[in-house]
Amino acid sequence: MLGIGVLGCGRIGAMHAANIAAHAKARVTAVYDINHAAAQAVSAITGAPVMASASEVFASPDVDAVLIATATDTHADLLEQAIAAGKPVLCEKPIDLSLTRVDRCAAAIAHTSLPVQIGFVRRFDPGHKAVFEAVHNGSIGKLHQLIITSRDPGFPPQAYLEKSGGILRDMTIHDFDMARYILGEEPARVFAVGSRLAAPTLMNVLDDEDTITVVMTTHSGKQVILMNSREATYGYDQRVEAFGSLGMAVSENRRSHHMVLSGSSFTGQAAPLLNFFIERYREAFDAEIDAFVDTVENGSPVAVSYHDGRQALVLAEAALKSLQEGRIVDVSEIG
Amino acid sequence: MLGIGVLGCGRIGAMHAANIAAHAKARVTAVYDINHAAAQAVSAITGAPVMASASEVFASPDVDAVLIATATDTHADLLEQAIAAGKPVLCEKPIDLSLTRVDRCAAAIAHTSLPVQIGFVRRFDPGHKAVFEAVHNGSIGKLHQLIITSRDPGFPPQAYLEKSGGILRDMTIHDFDMARYILGEEPARVFAVGSRLAAPTLMNVLDDEDTITVVMTTHSGKQVILMNSREATYGYDQRVEAFGSLGMAVSENRRSHHMVLSGSSFTGQAAPLLNFFIERYREAFDAEIDAFVDTVENGSPVAVSYHDGRQALVLAEAALKSLQEGRIVDVSEIG
Amino acid sequence: MLGIGVLGCGRIGAMHAANIAAHAKARVTAVYDINHAAAQAVSAITGAPVMASASEVFASPDVDAVLIATATDTHADLLEQAIAAGKPVLCEKPIDLSLTRVDRCAAAIAHTSLPVQIGFVRRFDPGHKAVFEAVHNGSIGKLHQLIITSRDPGFPPQAYLEKSGGILRDMTIHDFDMARYILGEEPARVFAVGSRLAAPTLMNVLDDEDTITVVMTTHSGKQVILMNSREATYGYDQRVEAFGSLGMAVSENRRSHHMVLSGSSFTGQAAPLLNFFIERYREAFDAEIDAFVDTVENGSPVAVSYHDGRQALVLAEAALKSLQEGRIVDVSEIG
Amino acid sequence: MLGIGVLGCGRIGAMHAANIAAHAKARVTAVYDINHAAAQAVSAITGAPVMASASEVFASPDVDAVLIATATDTHADLLEQAIAAGKPVLCEKPIDLSLTRVDRCAAAIAHTSLPVQIGFVRRFDPGHKAVFEAVHNGSIGKLHQLIITSRDPGFPPQAYLEKSGGILRDMTIHDFDMARYILGEEPARVFAVGSRLAAPTLMNVLDDEDTITVVMTTHSGKQVILMNSREATYGYDQRVEAFGSLGMAVSENRRSHHMVLSGSSFTGQAAPLLNFFIERYREAFDAEIDAFVDTVENGSPVAVSYHDGRQALVLAEAALKSLQEGRIVDVSEIG
Repeated sequence: MLGIGVLGCGRIGAMHAANIAAHAKARVTAVYDINHAAAQAVSAITGAPVMASASEVFASPDVDAVLIATATDTHADLLEQAIAAGKPVLCEKPIDLSLTRVDRCAAAIAHTSLPVQIGFVRRFDPGHKAVFEAVHNGSIGKLHQLIITSRDPGFPPQAYLEKSGGILRDMTIHDFDMARYILGEEPARVFAVGSRLAAPTLMNVLDDEDTITVVMTTHSGKQVILMNSREATYGYDQRVEAFGSLGMAVSENRRSHHMVLSGSSFTGQAAPLLNFFIERYREAFDAEIDAFVDTVENGSPVAVSYHDGRQALVLAEAALKSLQEGRIVDVSEIG
Repeated sequence: MLGIGVLGCGRIGAMHAANIAAHAKARVTAVYDINHAAAQAVSAITGAPVMASASEVFASPDVDAVLIATATDTHADLLEQAIAAGKPVLCEKPIDLSLTRVDRCAAAIAHTSLPVQIGFVRRFDPGHKAVFEAVHNGSIGKLHQLIITSRDPGFPPQAYLEKSGGILRDMTIHDFDMARYILGEEPARVFAVGSRLAAPTLMNVLDDEDTITVVMTTHSGKQVILMNSREATYGYDQRVEAFGSLGMAVSENRRSHHMVLSGSSFTGQAAPLLNFFIERYREAFDAEIDAFVDTVENGSPVAVSYHDGRQALVLAEAALKSLQEGRIVDVSEIG
Repeated sequence: MLGIGVLGCGRIGAMHAANIAAHAKARVTAVYDINHAAAQAVSAITGAPVMASASEVFASPDVDAVLIATATDTHADLLEQAIAAGKPVLCEKPIDLSLTRVDRCAAAIAHTSLPVQIGFVRRFDPGHKAVFEAVHNGSIGKLHQLIITSRDPGFPPQAYLEKSGGILRDMTIHDFDMARYILGEEPARVFAVGSRLAAPTLMNVLDDEDTITVVMTTHSGKQVILMNSREATYGYDQRVEAFGSLGMAVSENRRSHHMVLSGSSFTGQAAPLLNFFIERYREAFDAEIDAFVDTVENGSPVAVSYHDGRQALVLAEAALKSLQEGRIVDVSEIG
Repeated sequence: MLGIGVLGCGRIGAMHAANIAAHAKARVTAVYDINHAAAQAVSAITGAPVMASASEVFASPDVDAVLIATATDTHADLLEQAIAAGKPVLCEKPIDLSLTRVDRCAAAIAHTSLPVQIGFVRRFDPGHKAVFEAVHNGSIGKLHQLIITSRDPGFPPQAYLEKSGGILRDMTIHDFDMARYILGEEPARVFAVGSRLAAPTLMNVLDDEDTITVVMTTHSGKQVILMNSREATYGYDQRVEAFGSLGMAVSENRRSHHMVLSGSSFTGQAAPLLNFFIERYREAFDAEIDAFVDTVENGSPVAVSYHDGRQALVLAEAALKSLQEGRIVDVSEIG
């Protein structure tokens, strides 16, 4: 039974805490949030004690590992502290919005052999994972094109957007990771276009985009297409299509059930798409905890490494540069 | 927090216990099974104490209500004892294989106002429920035909079959209940045919059928068709189709994901049907507990009544008589 | 180039004539209808001369074979005359509404070796045919249950209904044939229920049913379920499901295209079901002519025999008797 | 009855001739091909006389209009001659591989009011057209992203590839036209990547690509993504997805039927994708002729104009430049 200290008790942290509490091989042994009420709410559900500080969490003998789900700009500090305290870490993405900070943190923890897993949860989705497997077991032959569609049901709060680092760093970053996961090869060149179509006024205020297309190529010529929108009225659109020399594997959207209603002027699905990520990636969040427990307890390889966390950010930076300079960017320009 | 005592810690009981343990408004406060090891296993997961007898469960002050998931032939006795002890009951189906016993139990508990809910879990399935709603909110107009397909992925153990009361009482009974749930009207006449096609030798030994079709009609002329098989190689096939004057509502099968693989000789779903009832009706089992807690704590109407439990058995008896006598049976012949 | 004389230039006859005219190996060489204007319209499209009588068609040296698409009560007479004149026949279903007349016609043409093909067009539908093949090539193992759904988009004109012989003889008859085609075995027992739900007043006037369920069993225990309605608001519903020991084959409905529209409150097919039989079974009508030409020109076996035409009628009679007498009818009771 | 002279009796010309012959309002009145045998074969099917030269076709009083389906490098010459002879023209795409030649031809026919329709047949596909309508009738609100997938089942003959002008001019050109059709706005900037993945050796010989991704943006910020492959083992993949402020419209692939086969290790479509363009776009080829007849006979607007033919080529040129120079190309750079 792995004792996990949960740092950050907002929406994501609370969800993780509940998953850990329900997990057969893990339990929550400490919770902390700068918002004491949030920590108490999670404590009430999990039975874990509220700690007065992150340090107290790291110091607790009941805490075998920590989950970092605090505000993004605290991730790297807490990660360094956790490693210094000898605790394995499961850290929500992104590690940091600054590649410099990410690399400084990497240097600070370079000596450790403690597992650090980054929270790219979509790798654990059964459908996306099945695409990964179809690519890697030869079912579709050699991969030629990889198309990832991610559209959110609606805009997050403006306060979030102001700190998110922009759509490429906060939203497309999932797709950069998914692309690397499935490709088995690093993207070499990146091209991005962004538009302000769904909420142009807000986007102008934030100097951000709400509609994104990214094209990446690898040295071997594989083509990757990522398409994002901040707002899809029909729900949370999450698809992955891998096209190869022997076939195609497509992870389609999911619904809570499949009741089809037919009438004189329609034939349609009665259930909307699973909405939002907590529902859509429910099994994936569970599997993410499974993988972390398995790594800490059994030494199985880290499922999503610190390097993976860094590389997704590198691609986001490359895409941002492409968008700003209106040209193709070589990933090697970034780092 | 409703304290529930779990009687019976076999596959179904253990699943219910885990669901209750994970439920926000309920917890397991006692477990009992004639097989002590089974009770201990459930105790280990839920933290609830193992009791030495059912009586001890009924007597516990921590037990606000009980869930009966023991062998079928003990249901009625335990139900009577629970009511006598003042405990609300959630009882797995069927109440009993004998209609006489069911009616004797009904008489024994006639005086009580304590809630008794019968475990026809499929009523809580989101897809089937959506069909129910389409029928009752007028989306498909007046119901004309109702078609229910239930095929199990494979035969249960022979030991189970020997005591199950036959396919009509143990398997079709779910469909009799589903039919009544959606119809909003009692079937009046029943016609059944049975065949021994999947495992004829075993069926001859048991004098049972493995393939069933039942047709029922109501006084208003609605037609109901139930189709069953003990063995479907492609998985657990669970569909409901309601056809009416303004349209059709179909609850289709479900899969764990929707990865579609296309190659030179195939285009297919990579994931099989959700298999078996614990996976397929996962949300339904949760919702069943929700409904029970809501009834006990808030006095909301019983979702599946004792009468519902009885009437499904009446239809099973009528179908059995039809099958044995090779004729249409009027439900009033049964009781 | 097979010269075909077309008898009957109503909706079906005109459609057949156009198909024959467009066929690479056949042409229309004579047309006849008691309604001269109808014959002229078909003549204008096909370029074939209008004949003054059926006899004139049979006598024409340009007529190598005839297609009978006249009113049902003239089929048997014309069929006998065509055979007497030495012409192969493709005769629309049903041969006649009276089994006695069918058998008298059979006797009258018993001596001939000329091909007579009956117009059960659905056997030629690519999807239904694929189910047939899945059953007969072993893909689904041994057949256990066969479920056929046929619902018309709306009622035919009352004038048609008054002469059609009732729903079992005019509509279900297609399903009786489809069942025999796929089963590869004769149904032995028939049970039918009928209801007056879609247009009860009209049904009472006609003493007919608008909603039908038929269950049939074979000597080996295979179960067949046929479901009909005269009116489905969502269109022409044509499905066949074969369930067997190794799997299931389902011929689903078809649409003119697959544009799926998703919005905030719907996800649905933009195109309705192909409507009505001329569109839905377009390829099948072509393939039916192919088969007939192939039989006449190359001596390949008759695709749908006179016996097939008779047996579908026998099953309709059995179902009608079941419905009238409220009991299971043994097919041997009919003939 | 419009008399059409068919120039070019290869695969496409012969198909068009058969469609015209079967058309209610048109007929083939002359055929010509430099390959006399090809012309004779089409003559045999349509009954139209074989002409000794294109000039003879233009001179025939029975020829009201002409269809040009000859080799691409003869299109512009024949088009000019047809207009000079006073004949309306339906010309297969592309007008010419050289934009200079296209513009010279435009100048040569600038004076005429005779209709000239270019053969971008996909605009007439029922599914793609339904996407167009969803975009233009407001069903999906304002268009944000348009994604077009076109993958051929296999490589054309090398002889064809040597003369085709490369994948962007011969294959992607359909998608450039589809994009313009649906957008209702001209693309302003083009970015393309090409890879040699399916047949690298052949592609190196031809200095061509077999795998293409093109991204285009309009002045208003709409994003267009085109994806091509010369070889998809699973068949002819033809999809269009329009994503907008109020929803999404997707034209999915089509099959000849929908028989779904389920077994212990698969659930799949038994029919492959409709293959190849003659089958997939059968209704579209018919509707293209309809539109042309309607324009010539009733003066309805030209469905696909000469300008449309030119602009698709402009986008192909822009994409080629992008691919060659590794940069975003402004469409105004081309012409």
